[in-house]
Amino acid sequence: MNTMNHRYCVIMCGGVGTRFWPFSRHDRPKQFLDFFGTGKSLLQMTVDRICPSVSVDNIILVTNKEYLHIIKEQLPQIKDSNILLEPARRNTAPCVCWAAKHIYAMDPDAVIVTLPSDHMVLKEPEFCKAIDEGFDFVEKGNRLLTLGIKPSGPNTGYGYIQQGSAEKDFPGIFRVKAFVEKPNIEMAEMFVATGEFFWNAGIFLWSAHAILEAFDKLAPEIAQTLDAPRDVYATPKEPEFIDRHFPDCVNISIDYAIMEKASNVYVKTVEFGWSDLGTWKALYETSPRNSEGNVTQNCQVILSDCSGSIFAAEGKKIIVAAGLKDYIVADTGKALLIYPINEEQKIRNIVNDVRSRFGEDFV
Amino acid sequence: MNTMNHRYCVIMCGGVGTRFWPFSRHDRPKQFLDFFGTGKSLLQMTVDRICPSVSVDNIILVTNKEYLHIIKEQLPQIKDSNILLEPARRNTAPCVCWAAKHIYAMDPDAVIVTLPSDHMVLKEPEFCKAIDEGFDFVEKGNRLLTLGIKPSGPNTGYGYIQQGSAEKDFPGIFRVKAFVEKPNIEMAEMFVATGEFFWNAGIFLWSAHAILEAFDKLAPEIAQTLDAPRDVYATPKEPEFIDRHFPDCVNISIDYAIMEKASNVYVKTVEFGWSDLGTWKALYETSPRNSEGNVTQNCQVILSDCSGSIFAAEGKKIIVAAGLKDYIVADTGKALLIYPINEEQKIRNIVNDVRSRFGEDFV
Repeated sequence: MNTMNHRYCVIMCGGVGTRFWPFSRHDRPKQFLDFFGTGKSLLQMTVDRICPSVSVDNIILVTNKEYLHIIKEQLPQIKDSNILLEPARRNTAPCVCWAAKHIYAMDPDAVIVTLPSDHMVLKEPEFCKAIDEGFDFVEKGNRLLTLGIKPSGPNTGYGYIQQGSAEKDFPGIFRVKAFVEKPNIEMAEMFVATGEFFWNAGIFLWSAHAILEAFDKLAPEIAQTLDAPRDVYATPKEPEFIDRHFPDCVNISIDYAIMEKASNVYVKTVEFGWSDLGTWKALYETSPRNSEGNVTQNCQVILSDCSGSIFAAEGKKIIVAAGLKDYIVADTGKALLIYPINEEQKIRNIVNDVRSRFGEDFV
Repeated sequence: MNTMNHRYCVIMCGGVGTRFWPFSRHDRPKQFLDFFGTGKSLLQMTVDRICPSVSVDNIILVTNKEYLHIIKEQLPQIKDSNILLEPARRNTAPCVCWAAKHIYAMDPDAVIVTLPSDHMVLKEPEFCKAIDEGFDFVEKGNRLLTLGIKPSGPNTGYGYIQQGSAEKDFPGIFRVKAFVEKPNIEMAEMFVATGEFFWNAGIFLWSAHAILEAFDKLAPEIAQTLDAPRDVYATPKEPEFIDRHFPDCVNISIDYAIMEKASNVYVKTVEFGWSDLGTWKALYETSPRNSEGNVTQNCQVILSDCSGSIFAAEGKKIIVAAGLKDYIVADTGKALLIYPINEEQKIRNIVNDVRSRFGEDFV
């Protein structure tokens, strides 16, 4: 049997984020941006990255209705019936449940890898190998597998997964002992020192059967809300059903609803140059730097006495700067941000301020 | 006799400057910019400012050929025959001499005020009063008059004029004792303390006859180079004559060629909120500031912990910044400058660097 045809990928690309304002805006969130000026958006790179492991016809995108036009523009190879349009934002658990029901209706033997759409992976061959080995593992039984990234340092911006006992016959796969929320720096340092803790990358593998069984048991209110007669999922009746019932789902993440509660949860520890690109700092740390430790994106710079800074622009701009230490300089046509990188947590509030003072056009 | 019809204005608007890069560029120097976001360029403001004193038909513009299209766009009220197109850049003396010959050919009784095109005047009524009084003075005889601005502080960016004995019957007008080049700070402080020194604003008044006589005597090589048969100036033959002979003129300023040598030079001391806008610092100092001492131009800002800085943009941009003290932030579509205001003298070298690395398009 060619198992590859039972292998599916769900890419969650409905998120809205303004942490990278002014680059990411409500009408153009991060996953749709050509973040590195390579000509491909993070979403396009995510699709390219999974293609060696999953056939393109088995890639399912879950997004918000308002982004359909961007997705069709960026991913013409994905057929319409593989694009699931959420009528409302309900976090990741309802999204995962719907996608699993959709896929299960087409293929009860399906195994699924679920991916965020806006992360970065530097070592694609290692990534593909990890995904393939993960599929091999979840095809063997009723198991929920998450990938755990070997920490490169005591990062406080990620949740951690503590590994338990090793799985026989599956090197690098362990029982999960605990999920831990974003720690403070002392905790993070301790975690890294033990060697037992890994970053939670939000990459999951399971069979459609296993995850639906987990929903039935651990999040029955979602399972029941999305419960439909046999002829709904993967048929023309599906959109109307979803439009009516999906908004009734509780707003909860897959981690809270399932992973932290389930007993059959495993972690595969991996190391493939991953970043969630969740912060300017993360972007800075994963990007190549010049000799003064500055990072440039889509711009040309003449810098004197600048260090530890990231310069990002649209449209191949020239940036001339002096005397900036540890700064974000981010320029779009409409807005310019010049901000200390260590205060970037304030950007969320600033964006709210911009919205209230200058209107939605700028966020 | 209505003397106003003999009153002329020459506006020199052929200069090229990159000190305000990225705003001022070779193909769009400072005088053509809407510097304050008011909808009018500095040149347009200069024309508006002189209009109470000089009829629009008596306003002569001297510029470089390459800027003709901008001038026709910005000043449709100026007729073509009043636009003198220099075939080459030869500093201010040849420009002044040509304009005087052109005007003298039309009106031997003409008196002329010569103005730079890219300065700022805050108190226009006082400016007009000074110009009118200056015309009254130079109409009385063979005199070269310059305006001297009462210093607001020991500025080292301007040349100074030292006043001599007062002219009877003309309050505020003095013989010039000396022209002094840009001083160092100790000298400038001494100048200001004496009360005898005034900034040289490059604004001159004289009769056409008086200045041409001065050229004959003090800069005969220019006078002779531009000497033409009677039917050339202010006739269709003028452009061809100028194209052939003007480039042969020496490159020298009116201050060096005439003012510092002439014996009939007077200064009228004035105070009308003047700045040559020659530096970002000068622009900063003449612009209204918010409570943290920041200046904004054509942008909206959200600033925290910023002071002593100037934020200038095109296209009504939003600028969010933190932690900048005494900075220039200047943004155009193509380039962004973030530079300590006290190091702005380095900008000239940077522009050369930009030119050599990225090409003329950016300067």
